[in-house]
Amino acid sequence: MVQHTEINRRIVLASRPVGAPTNENFRLEKIPKPIPKDGQILLRSIYLSLDPYMRGRMSDAASYADPVEVDAVMVGGTVCQVEATNHPNYQVGEWILAYIGWQDYALSDGSGLVRLGKPEKPSYALGILGMPGFTAYMGLLDIGQPKEGDTLVVAAATGPVGATVGQIAKLKGCKVIGVAGGEEKCAHARDVLGFDACLNHKADDFAEQLRAVCPKGVDIYFENVGGKVFDAVLPLFNNGARIPVCGLVSQYNATKLPDGPDRLSLLMGNILVKRLKMQGFIIFDYYEHYGEFVEEMSQWLSAGKIKYREQLVNGLENAPESFIGLLEGRNFGKLVIKVNDEL
Amino acid sequence: MVQHTEINRRIVLASRPVGAPTNENFRLEKIPKPIPKDGQILLRSIYLSLDPYMRGRMSDAASYADPVEVDAVMVGGTVCQVEATNHPNYQVGEWILAYIGWQDYALSDGSGLVRLGKPEKPSYALGILGMPGFTAYMGLLDIGQPKEGDTLVVAAATGPVGATVGQIAKLKGCKVIGVAGGEEKCAHARDVLGFDACLNHKADDFAEQLRAVCPKGVDIYFENVGGKVFDAVLPLFNNGARIPVCGLVSQYNATKLPDGPDRLSLLMGNILVKRLKMQGFIIFDYYEHYGEFVEEMSQWLSAGKIKYREQLVNGLENAPESFIGLLEGRNFGKLVIKVNDEL
Repeated sequence: MVQHTEINRRIVLASRPVGAPTNENFRLEKIPKPIPKDGQILLRSIYLSLDPYMRGRMSDAASYADPVEVDAVMVGGTVCQVEATNHPNYQVGEWILAYIGWQDYALSDGSGLVRLGKPEKPSYALGILGMPGFTAYMGLLDIGQPKEGDTLVVAAATGPVGATVGQIAKLKGCKVIGVAGGEEKCAHARDVLGFDACLNHKADDFAEQLRAVCPKGVDIYFENVGGKVFDAVLPLFNNGARIPVCGLVSQYNATKLPDGPDRLSLLMGNILVKRLKMQGFIIFDYYEHYGEFVEEMSQWLSAGKIKYREQLVNGLENAPESFIGLLEGRNFGKLVIKVNDEL
Repeated sequence: MVQHTEINRRIVLASRPVGAPTNENFRLEKIPKPIPKDGQILLRSIYLSLDPYMRGRMSDAASYADPVEVDAVMVGGTVCQVEATNHPNYQVGEWILAYIGWQDYALSDGSGLVRLGKPEKPSYALGILGMPGFTAYMGLLDIGQPKEGDTLVVAAATGPVGATVGQIAKLKGCKVIGVAGGEEKCAHARDVLGFDACLNHKADDFAEQLRAVCPKGVDIYFENVGGKVFDAVLPLFNNGARIPVCGLVSQYNATKLPDGPDRLSLLMGNILVKRLKMQGFIIFDYYEHYGEFVEEMSQWLSAGKIKYREQLVNGLENAPESFIGLLEGRNFGKLVIKVNDEL
């Protein structure tokens, strides 16, 4: 871990991945640490969030955000501290939520920064109290519309979004079925998060198991993975089921469409006959609700009603390998890189 | 046309179609005209509605309504008159909306009947003032959420649903692009219904034409056909586009899924990245809004703001051939069978 050096390490996109990203798509560079001019502060990254959406930014396909340019720093949310200041409104040591990406340092004139005050757990601003938690909260409540007695299915059940979706749904009186990769994660979802059941999607008879634990069908499917989990849920939808579409991790690395038959018309037929609502969203469309989210989620956390698991990995240099593992489901909990020690 | 005979002609489902229905799937039977007992009325069908949803009822696949049994009378909405009464609350000659299906006569104890008063155009209760008009109204306003300046695309543009969707959207300030089969229908959509454009989906370069007339993309696609019209609209959706899924006429006769590649993940990806809302609906879920619909639509009709075109076909015996043509798009306007003369 780099400390008080004059070097800024940064990881840039070396080339666009074809299929799953590899270490060769990233390059670690070392450049001089920048010096704040008048009206600027120097941000030191303490925590870097790694999230599946970053895979989309590595491609140049049209999406809701511009791609990362080749040779540019990888994007990402960070919790930083002010290491040096030439700005009258910022003090050394302040905690800041910023989007400086995969690097040690960045300058800022203050625009776009979010002050975090004196956070008990600074890294939570990248997870349960940040973008993933807010995504779970709005997608479930606004689109999913959970009602007492509904059956909800959510995959990536121990990830920061899935775990939060399931726990909020439990608070709303739903029966919650998680899906995760491996028995250890499933046990966590049941025993710690309080899900009614959690199934290992690697099981050969996963689809049959899912049917068996959803005897009343599925009213809400929070979509964050796609692929075979969606295929298994599709026949189980009840009339009027709601499907917030938040992510499709299983297909981010796909280089072409799967072989046929073409099931587009099958999906359309299901939407029609079962009056399904499928709705995509990105959390930036909901920013006006952020305050109410932080307030309610903080209360749930304090009261122990929502549990949160982080996986901290030390060292910026480990970000590429950790990110590659994230897309394969090798993380367990919210993946955060500890970039530098606190001031 | 049968008049004052003692015969009830009825058309039953002779066999379930495989693919497109043929005349062999229907059988015309003649049985004695029923006689009302105490508390019953005899309904004489004057108008029978033919609608695409009936194709679904001919199959035994799970759907939102039970299938028609083989050898049972085909279902359908009818505008009837009371020909004979043994019920204290009904008078001979009253106009009634009932679901007696593809036959001349049926008995009723009054349950499920809707009195039509003294209608100026009785058959309108099967179209613009009935199920198709109500479907267009609720699907567009509740799910489509039209806003001034939106671009809306609707297929089957001269059918009773499509024509109504487009005209209401014009009243709401949208740019309206119709899609229809043939130049005569397209001219009607432009010149009579007031659509901004209408394209013939049979044109080889239909997808390119659609792109050209939607330079600002598509905000609402009212889905009633599926197939190649949907394929052409899919790349044009704007962020936040709404897709009420009302029908999929183009795939009702399909016996298997099309060949690959499998575009289910492509559709899911579009829903995610463009934050699309796709929602199926059936009009029976909206019955509490029927009164407000009839009131507003009647005003629009009286004021000449909504135009309505019917295609009347004489004779119950022509219902099967007319229905087969409906699924092929051979009708022009709302297809109604004139079953018997008025009393």
